[in-house]
Amino acid sequence: MTGQGLHVLALAGGVGGAKLAAGLAHLLGERLTVLVNTADDFEHLGLRISPDLDTVMYTLAGIANPETGWGIAGESWTVMEQVGRLGGPTWFRLGDRDLATHAVRTERLARGDTLTAVTAGLCRTLGVRPTVLPMTDDRVRTVVHAGGDALPFQHYFVRLRCAIPVDGFSFDGAAHARFNRALDAIPGGRLVIVICPSNPYLSIDPILALPGLRAWIEKTAAKVVAVSPIVGGAAIKGPAAKIMRELGIAPSAAAVARHYRGLIDGFIIDEADAASQKEIAHHGLAVRVTQTVMRTHDDRVRLARDCLALADALAAAG
Amino acid sequence: MTGQGLHVLALAGGVGGAKLAAGLAHLLGERLTVLVNTADDFEHLGLRISPDLDTVMYTLAGIANPETGWGIAGESWTVMEQVGRLGGPTWFRLGDRDLATHAVRTERLARGDTLTAVTAGLCRTLGVRPTVLPMTDDRVRTVVHAGGDALPFQHYFVRLRCAIPVDGFSFDGAAHARFNRALDAIPGGRLVIVICPSNPYLSIDPILALPGLRAWIEKTAAKVVAVSPIVGGAAIKGPAAKIMRELGIAPSAAAVARHYRGLIDGFIIDEADAASQKEIAHHGLAVRVTQTVMRTHDDRVRLARDCLALADALAAAG
Repeated sequence: MTGQGLHVLALAGGVGGAKLAAGLAHLLGERLTVLVNTADDFEHLGLRISPDLDTVMYTLAGIANPETGWGIAGESWTVMEQVGRLGGPTWFRLGDRDLATHAVRTERLARGDTLTAVTAGLCRTLGVRPTVLPMTDDRVRTVVHAGGDALPFQHYFVRLRCAIPVDGFSFDGAAHARFNRALDAIPGGRLVIVICPSNPYLSIDPILALPGLRAWIEKTAAKVVAVSPIVGGAAIKGPAAKIMRELGIAPSAAAVARHYRGLIDGFIIDEADAASQKEIAHHGLAVRVTQTVMRTHDDRVRLARDCLALADALAAAG
Repeated sequence: MTGQGLHVLALAGGVGGAKLAAGLAHLLGERLTVLVNTADDFEHLGLRISPDLDTVMYTLAGIANPETGWGIAGESWTVMEQVGRLGGPTWFRLGDRDLATHAVRTERLARGDTLTAVTAGLCRTLGVRPTVLPMTDDRVRTVVHAGGDALPFQHYFVRLRCAIPVDGFSFDGAAHARFNRALDAIPGGRLVIVICPSNPYLSIDPILALPGLRAWIEKTAAKVVAVSPIVGGAAIKGPAAKIMRELGIAPSAAAVARHYRGLIDGFIIDEADAASQKEIAHHGLAVRVTQTVMRTHDDRVRLARDCLALADALAAAG
């Protein structure tokens, strides 16, 4: 199933997406392209920060901090401590080496490089073999709507720790953004598209909101497989389940499958949700039940294999 | 001579200016205002860097690195090393704690604070008692003219280490910049103005190029005393002597006195230049010969006392 000519395009946000991407990278190396959400990007302390791109990049480089889910393992905090002493903002924690990534990115964007080119350069120096692509080189920003207010995403996510109920999200700039056309450079052959177990509303929806991307996916005729980020009614990490409840949706793997209806061909759910297999299959989806929680490197690789196996089965079924 | 009602305004660039400012601060505390060159400021790695302001601020805070003349003593270099690993620019060395200063400054400027307000906030957290003022809140940038080229200052100064002969300097934006009106808040009483032993062409001239500042100085009727940065035909630090030669001026204390003609009342030269006392006095200046090289804290304080004594003598002479 990892034979010649196979290429995988993974759509990913942060931690969960990065883990599955690492499993896929183990199997595919350069035959993997990861299209990453950039609607969480923001400017802070003068620096351009791309949290999801960095989580994917650091995870693929094997330097991600496994405890926090963001940043680099074994970080030092000299800059941040001094920022605090100087009375500056410390609610968004930047390790010293992580900060270097943002500094280099900011410098290169300022001299006119695209985020795609900057990311490629960073990945090269970090020894990342797959192609990591920002979803767009244009500016798209998630706005969180809550009780009549409109909050920038990182203020909701990090500063307020998602502690307010949300009414919905919008993606500023998405309507006029151009999805990353480097997708067209994916080599010919069989393409499989994997929607990683990232937050459907905050990580995957911004990618899918880019004009023409759904049409591009359909045109490839690739089989599209998604992995549920909801296991046993809860999110493995992050606010997905909380957000679903606030939006009036009972959090479940089946609800995620419904969310992706019309886009995906196959859906992978956890053994904890085996009971909902029939309900999901009822939507016309091929369902695979497996162990989806990725604690170890082997977990990541096994889930990646499951994704490819489901895509294989779908291809064989025609 | 440090009696009630005395206030000193010092015009300063980097290292030499900062040292004398520290001597004056020892004698005067809050009764010192330092007006600092900002034409060396630039943007790098996304950060707004104000080299002279920082050198003055760090020196007055007692945290300056005495070996380099810039940055903070006992620095770590985690960010810069990682920037290098990522293929980013490392020609302008930023220590981790120094970088925090720039990050906080950049963040506050981005939210609309003036450089004056930002500097005041930084000085407060660093325990600096004198008032440190950027010469202007407007953008002024030194341009180095050399062999038909026009170079940004830091590229000439740091990247090329001044290794090319210069034809002259211009100060982009100076003609329309507003000098720092916080000068008007200097309390009434006797004012003495000290031109520190900074580079006349690169540190003091940009300040004096601000429209209305010379007139403001004249209007105060303050005695103006300058300290020669040239000792025995050489600069204590930096390219002043080299630049003078390239501009066709034999580097000497007397040449600096001529440069400040019409602005200053008194001039302090080093014992090494005692022979030129008469020549300088010939320009109608009161001249004091002393030990001007500041190696220790006591040297700084003694030179500060010499400045005030010369101003006292000028005041007594009417």
